[in-house]
Amino acid sequence: MPRYKATIAYDGTDFYGWQVQPNKRTVQAEMELVVNKMAKNPAEHIRVQGSGRTDARVHAKGQVAHFDLPFDIPADAVRKGLSTMLPYDIGIKKVEKVSDDFHAQFNAHDKTYFYRFSTTEYIDPFKRNYTGHWHRRLNPELMQQAIGDYVGEHDWLSFVASGFQQKTTVRTVYSAKMWVKPEIEEIWFEFSGNGFLYNQIRIMVGVLLEIGNGIRPVDDIQRLFEVKDRQQAQFTAPAQGLYLMDVKY
Amino acid sequence: MPRYKATIAYDGTDFYGWQVQPNKRTVQAEMELVVNKMAKNPAEHIRVQGSGRTDARVHAKGQVAHFDLPFDIPADAVRKGLSTMLPYDIGIKKVEKVSDDFHAQFNAHDKTYFYRFSTTEYIDPFKRNYTGHWHRRLNPELMQQAIGDYVGEHDWLSFVASGFQQKTTVRTVYSAKMWVKPEIEEIWFEFSGNGFLYNQIRIMVGVLLEIGNGIRPVDDIQRLFEVKDRQQAQFTAPAQGLYLMDVKY
Repeated sequence: MPRYKATIAYDGTDFYGWQVQPNKRTVQAEMELVVNKMAKNPAEHIRVQGSGRTDARVHAKGQVAHFDLPFDIPADAVRKGLSTMLPYDIGIKKVEKVSDDFHAQFNAHDKTYFYRFSTTEYIDPFKRNYTGHWHRRLNPELMQQAIGDYVGEHDWLSFVASGFQQKTTVRTVYSAKMWVKPEIEEIWFEFSGNGFLYNQIRIMVGVLLEIGNGIRPVDDIQRLFEVKDRQQAQFTAPAQGLYLMDVKY
Repeated sequence: MPRYKATIAYDGTDFYGWQVQPNKRTVQAEMELVVNKMAKNPAEHIRVQGSGRTDARVHAKGQVAHFDLPFDIPADAVRKGLSTMLPYDIGIKKVEKVSDDFHAQFNAHDKTYFYRFSTTEYIDPFKRNYTGHWHRRLNPELMQQAIGDYVGEHDWLSFVASGFQQKTTVRTVYSAKMWVKPEIEEIWFEFSGNGFLYNQIRIMVGVLLEIGNGIRPVDDIQRLFEVKDRQQAQFTAPAQGLYLMDVKY
């Protein structure tokens, strides 16, 4: 059973996220449908294992998944086959043959997410599914001062949504960047780390916006690390501004 | 009854075009719903008159419409009211008070349309609703040579879809431009004229692509003007790449 690694882009707008759920349209379900068709409906259902979940409406430009096929075909033929059969809101950027012990979730050691915020008075109709939206007073300099506090190994208990299942909430953020784009009235964020908890990035963005708005002091991120209290950062930036960009192995 | 002129953007993806149709979601219907609400449900239904129709899935960044309100409120208050009440896929860019004899359709004397084509092997999931898609062989130089033939006063009978209702098919195109964008694998077109027939722009783009592909000779536009035959240009570029950009009065 040769194993394949696929790099996948998807517009999350019309999906209930990555993971298979009963009676919901999900990216994993669409991928599994097509992979099993390509395998000529094998006796045992072939699973498509992603690097991790993404929520409903969250986008991906570099999600990674692996799956096994019952016969050996060239990686590029798999890419073309998937691309032809998948719906238009899923795109296959690359397919590679990998060794049997490659695992898209367990071997991932670095993930990069991107977040786009629009700051126009009313939301641009062409951005409504592709950016968060925030039209309150915002001082980007305060956010620039604060964002570096995210970098490093921290206990992210204050930055996780209820419902998380991991044993530990300690994770390392390698980089945290921000760009102000006045010409298109947007603010961009990019975060890389060894793993992120449920809703962590969206809460991190929410805290930064509240710092920019003056609701929180500029050094509040440090305080949130110390208090370890899931109730103190409630504002979760909307899903449609979030993009899974890259997974490293 | 003060008259207002609104400049409107919309993402056409989830609309059956501009014009009111029974049991269909259209931009005009959404606009009329909100304008009549703003007018406190007047005895007589207020019409919102657009500069012209756009088809299902066609976008606008500068559609213009006029309507009358039963009371006099500042133009900017109308803009804010509409923006707050309309769904997110319609945006109000500007509202101005105009004289009673302003008519969004009859006074329009110059319209500009934009068309985006993606040339990637498989369609980018983030472009599927916002560009046409063409992955065949394409020689942009041939298209650049041909596009100038569109400029001027011509009988566009070869470039109109069946079902057109106008008395004359003579129209003037003021400018026809094309940009090749290799860095994003797109080709862009822009056409301005004193009016366009049903599907005219999408057929003009289709003919250019067929010239670029070598299916038609580079001077075929001149021949199409001469033959005046609606059957000879069948390929209509897809609706989702077309944008109504500007209407001049």
